[in-house]
Amino acid sequence: MVDNNDIQRAHQRIKPFIHQTPVLCSELLNTLSGADIFFKCENFQKAGAFKYRGAINAVKLLPESDAHAGVATHSSGNHGAALARAASIRGIPAFIVVPTNANAVKKDAILTYGATIIECEPTLKSRETTLQRVVEKTGANFVPPYDDDRIIAGQGTVAVEMLQQISALEAVLVPVGGGGLLAGCSIGFASAGIKGIYGVEPSGADDAHRSLKTGLRVQEHTPESICDGLLTTLGERNFPIIRNHVQEILLVSDEEVVAAMRLLWTHLKIIVEPSSAVTMAGLLKHPHLFAGKRVGLILTGGNVDLEALPF
Amino acid sequence: MVDNNDIQRAHQRIKPFIHQTPVLCSELLNTLSGADIFFKCENFQKAGAFKYRGAINAVKLLPESDAHAGVATHSSGNHGAALARAASIRGIPAFIVVPTNANAVKKDAILTYGATIIECEPTLKSRETTLQRVVEKTGANFVPPYDDDRIIAGQGTVAVEMLQQISALEAVLVPVGGGGLLAGCSIGFASAGIKGIYGVEPSGADDAHRSLKTGLRVQEHTPESICDGLLTTLGERNFPIIRNHVQEILLVSDEEVVAAMRLLWTHLKIIVEPSSAVTMAGLLKHPHLFAGKRVGLILTGGNVDLEALPF
Repeated sequence: MVDNNDIQRAHQRIKPFIHQTPVLCSELLNTLSGADIFFKCENFQKAGAFKYRGAINAVKLLPESDAHAGVATHSSGNHGAALARAASIRGIPAFIVVPTNANAVKKDAILTYGATIIECEPTLKSRETTLQRVVEKTGANFVPPYDDDRIIAGQGTVAVEMLQQISALEAVLVPVGGGGLLAGCSIGFASAGIKGIYGVEPSGADDAHRSLKTGLRVQEHTPESICDGLLTTLGERNFPIIRNHVQEILLVSDEEVVAAMRLLWTHLKIIVEPSSAVTMAGLLKHPHLFAGKRVGLILTGGNVDLEALPF
Repeated sequence: MVDNNDIQRAHQRIKPFIHQTPVLCSELLNTLSGADIFFKCENFQKAGAFKYRGAINAVKLLPESDAHAGVATHSSGNHGAALARAASIRGIPAFIVVPTNANAVKKDAILTYGATIIECEPTLKSRETTLQRVVEKTGANFVPPYDDDRIIAGQGTVAVEMLQQISALEAVLVPVGGGGLLAGCSIGFASAGIKGIYGVEPSGADDAHRSLKTGLRVQEHTPESICDGLLTTLGERNFPIIRNHVQEILLVSDEEVVAAMRLLWTHLKIIVEPSSAVTMAGLLKHPHLFAGKRVGLILTGGNVDLEALPF
């Protein structure tokens, strides 16, 4: 299982290739929420999301003998763009299986970084069989979006940076889809003695919440939410880490997400995608958990289709 | 006339009260433009725009005997919100004359900071007579939006910060409305030996361009542009400073502004208002002036009505 040493080593490995993203604050949002909020802006990360951290960590770890065949994955967007960019940095090909209903902006980003897109039906089965076909044909190395030690360690570097940038954090909120970011960061935050580690997910995609509640990982569900980055199912490697370190998975409705997204756009003057706004929605929904505390929120990405805004 | 010493003193005076706003870069926008661009993000400034610098400088300079009566101004938005916030910091009242057609978000901000709004017709004449009435009635101190030494010195502190944050700048682009920011910053940049100081304004509000070309300040014009922050007429104090230091005022169409604004939203993941995007539009329109150079762009504000986006 990934531990804090793996995350520290990943940080040293990827540091020259990533942005150390800024932390923003807003007096108005502090007043509104009753908490002292520190927003970690991974929407400013290369390729527009934290996913680049895990992707570049995995790509850098490929042995020379395997790397030349390139990398492959399936992704509805941010992981695909991140892996495409990471592969282009190492000068190797990338093959990204993308469901036909993916966000156009995220698809464009994948193409910008010079990767090959292979379209599939928007089901997990079609994603997996299409990917298998691509891997067999090209010999490319599969880099999973979240259920992978290299990815978990890479995403955990967000926590490493936050702990350097913000002193005396008392609680943190992290979005959870497949659980790569939450698993990695929960290891980092727990090592620093932070007790209040919360995941947040849309109530229409509540597999992590149910998994933590019952102790059994939900493996099949039909998610529905505006948060297109959080529709994936909690990973096998991710679940036990999250169970060890995470206090609770908070749930928020899509309406609450859109309202929180609007607040962030209006008062922080930054562009975050719906999947990023779940943390602010979770904080506003559970003020008693965070009142008067120094709270870190991870804003995971900013890849929004400006033609299709929810407001 | 304001000089570099005034600007340096203003910087010392206001430093504890303002955000040192970050400088962002984008590889993709560099590739697209052929220049090395450094974006100074005054959209993250308190009250959402650089205007807070001049406002807090003016408010701090009021002698105690005058201050208690408060401050007054007319403003279509950002200066009004900035002055309202500055007054609230000093604990004095603020009276803001706002034209009936002002952007709703900017009006809301003025109210948030506890100021009194007085509505007027959207003409310069109505603004001025309404303001005069307010000043006579309340005894408040008029703080003009740009044609004022305290304001020019305050806005010039953007240049002071940029010169500390970015080394070896070769050219800068600054939006011009009334000319407070351009006048103040041109003094700072010229003192550092930068030759390529450019103003940018919408072609539908080209009074500064025409003034510089003819050597005579245009005093009456009927501007029309999506850039609601740049509709004001070049100030009397601002003109000679700009004439001394500024290479040229570039013109851009509203269509070019909207396209540039969209690029900034998409690739920097930040919210800037149309008036801020003129600089990027100007750079893209005149690539030969900036190719291969280290260029600073001031993104002036981020107060956008999300209900009325131009895309």
